[in-house]
Amino acid sequence: MDVKFPLALEHLIAHLGRLPGVGRRTAQRMAFSILGWKDDLAHLHERVKACPRCGNYTEGGECVVCASPRRDQHQICVVEQASQIAIFEQTGYNGLYHVLGGRLSPLSGIGPEELRIKELQERLASEDTAELILATSPDVEGEATANYLAELFRDGKVTITRIASGIPAGADVGYADAATLSRAMGGRRIL
Amino acid sequence: MDVKFPLALEHLIAHLGRLPGVGRRTAQRMAFSILGWKDDLAHLHERVKACPRCGNYTEGGECVVCASPRRDQHQICVVEQASQIAIFEQTGYNGLYHVLGGRLSPLSGIGPEELRIKELQERLASEDTAELILATSPDVEGEATANYLAELFRDGKVTITRIASGIPAGADVGYADAATLSRAMGGRRIL
Repeated sequence: MDVKFPLALEHLIAHLGRLPGVGRRTAQRMAFSILGWKDDLAHLHERVKACPRCGNYTEGGECVVCASPRRDQHQICVVEQASQIAIFEQTGYNGLYHVLGGRLSPLSGIGPEELRIKELQERLASEDTAELILATSPDVEGEATANYLAELFRDGKVTITRIASGIPAGADVGYADAATLSRAMGGRRIL
Repeated sequence: MDVKFPLALEHLIAHLGRLPGVGRRTAQRMAFSILGWKDDLAHLHERVKACPRCGNYTEGGECVVCASPRRDQHQICVVEQASQIAIFEQTGYNGLYHVLGGRLSPLSGIGPEELRIKELQERLASEDTAELILATSPDVEGEATANYLAELFRDGKVTITRIASGIPAGADVGYADAATLSRAMGGRRIL
């Protein structure tokens, strides 16, 4: 299922999607950018809030994922940005999310306190979580963030997993770069 | 280490690499294409042969990988084309290879007999192989080929593994397509 965004955001995406040459996906990206604009958009910002539990977009109160009785309460998928949840929803994932609000970046002055890590600790202490899926990007800062979280929660009761990095679906091995192929080889699985 | 191609092929790559705007990698791809031309290149084809053991390019006799005493004899990485071996060599992989010469493609009339599968069976029967790494591309035909081989060798003594499919190294999760993210989620590993 597609994530249902808060109504004001859906309206904005619908408007943008009617512009020539702009499809649904591009309209979504445009809308996420506009959400980042600081002024002249007070109305949008008033109506698009962060879910108090997971940090996903919501119109107020818990987001549609957290509020759904059909979601698996034992899994939490940790993502960098709320805007990434839409694509995870297309994979058939049926657990919960936790939005960090960014990734560790010492050079930009972003440490653990700048991210929603304390909120994640509180969730793990109070919720019935069995698996924590670290879904930050497989680049330098995303890997550092995943490693930090894995270390932080290592002695807890939850199983900590990391999404696979490797050859994209449908891609030709012959066009892979060495770093990606190294990950594909290192992450190979027994059939 | 970079694979050392047969000398005639290295010369061709060096010539192509001196063309304006053509780097080493592009020159390699051009050379592989030229290898596929049927006529006017008899000299090149005379000197670039297939390794009788693995199917890699060679000037005659076993290729540099098969002939090396330093390669791990317990691993065989199965690839579609000899031209892909160069990129695998950049990952630090130190085992052996087996070139299929293509992938299963019933619509193009390519069945198991058209590929070097019988040769692989003979190697598994006579060599001291512990792991067979299926490194065909994660697209429809590449997956079908991997599944066919996994089924064929299921009852043997070797461990059969598949390279990971997922988010490419350095890529942003937010730009992944749903199929790739599905594989990244499905192939997640315990940290």
